[in-house]
Amino acid sequence: MKLHGYWRSSASWRVRIALNLKGLSYEYVPVHLVKDGGQQHSEAYRALNPLRTVPTLEFTEGGRVHHLSQSLAILEYLEERHPSPALLPADPVLRAKVRMLSEVVNSGIQPLQNLMVLQRIKAEWKGDDKAWAAHWIDRGLGALHAMAQETAGRYCVGDSVSFADVCLVPQLYSARRFGVDLQPYGLLTRVEAACASLPAFQAAHADRQPDAVPA
Amino acid sequence: MKLHGYWRSSASWRVRIALNLKGLSYEYVPVHLVKDGGQQHSEAYRALNPLRTVPTLEFTEGGRVHHLSQSLAILEYLEERHPSPALLPADPVLRAKVRMLSEVVNSGIQPLQNLMVLQRIKAEWKGDDKAWAAHWIDRGLGALHAMAQETAGRYCVGDSVSFADVCLVPQLYSARRFGVDLQPYGLLTRVEAACASLPAFQAAHADRQPDAVPA
Repeated sequence: MKLHGYWRSSASWRVRIALNLKGLSYEYVPVHLVKDGGQQHSEAYRALNPLRTVPTLEFTEGGRVHHLSQSLAILEYLEERHPSPALLPADPVLRAKVRMLSEVVNSGIQPLQNLMVLQRIKAEWKGDDKAWAAHWIDRGLGALHAMAQETAGRYCVGDSVSFADVCLVPQLYSARRFGVDLQPYGLLTRVEAACASLPAFQAAHADRQPDAVPA
Repeated sequence: MKLHGYWRSSASWRVRIALNLKGLSYEYVPVHLVKDGGQQHSEAYRALNPLRTVPTLEFTEGGRVHHLSQSLAILEYLEERHPSPALLPADPVLRAKVRMLSEVVNSGIQPLQNLMVLQRIKAEWKGDDKAWAAHWIDRGLGALHAMAQETAGRYCVGDSVSFADVCLVPQLYSARRFGVDLQPYGLLTRVEAACASLPAFQAAHADRQPDAVPA
């Protein structure tokens, strides 16, 4: 498998964590989102992913090469094809809650603070893109924190790592980057610390990728 | 089951379609997103859904009442608990592609054009919220259209209705509302027409909900 991604993209990071947790090896293909006006806009990359986002997972199945984008679609695919270790609980209600928490990040926070949106806010309106990002991250984390009160154990849902943790960790990195105060979200940072002790999370960290640019 | 939703919310609409396709009856509880400053911000609703979005599905399982938000998490839950008729194909790659197309709408388009985002753009910067919405819808539909070229039959993926169609139809309604030219997206409007012939889609239409306000 090849993972087309970018070190600081939280969606790419989610997929790296899941691949590591499941013990799947992959080739990492950096797509630089800023250099050359953004390599995701190249004709070659658009052929893999017309939305021009990262990540895209490239894999062969049924004798054909497939290009799968959208990180949660990728996580679900990995879960179905490589079910162990499971990143979704067995219980249908708990599975639903894991997906709900994951979507709070995936559709409730991240789309509003991703690079293309911030670029447009700055270019079109000379708006304060950092304040915009911080607003939505803080709002979303507030909801996530409230929801996790009902579900969390050592991790976001119970005592097993799930999609929800895979989504949480990169989002908290991004929260700090945009200056969001995480002090009110102690439950989330406690879960983050539990994740940080796992090698799969450590190896997936943005700063440890070959295309990382030190701050 | 109770569905807390709003007639014109595309995420609420998706869940109505899925419930109808699966023949599940439900009580519809309107949450007016504008009246009274937005009923989703009420203390009562925040207790059901701290992110203050619609829809929220209320159901009883294991002797407990649950409140599940995030439309794709709800669709997955319905699919697992009420597998027939299936809204995901059996083949793992096709399932992945359905989820990818669904997420292009769910995380790639809708979050950028939802009410709370448009309200903030208008209030903070006196920005043109309609142009903002149209930009992201057009960009996302362009990607969706390109992806669907490879997967579509009568519907977005093959000849069976899936999550992807459930997400597409309300998004096209919203596209028209914001003045997006759909002429370049003939494949998508053809799929929409196929869906429109199905009673489950007809009954779920925004304009047919009890809280609908005629244009």
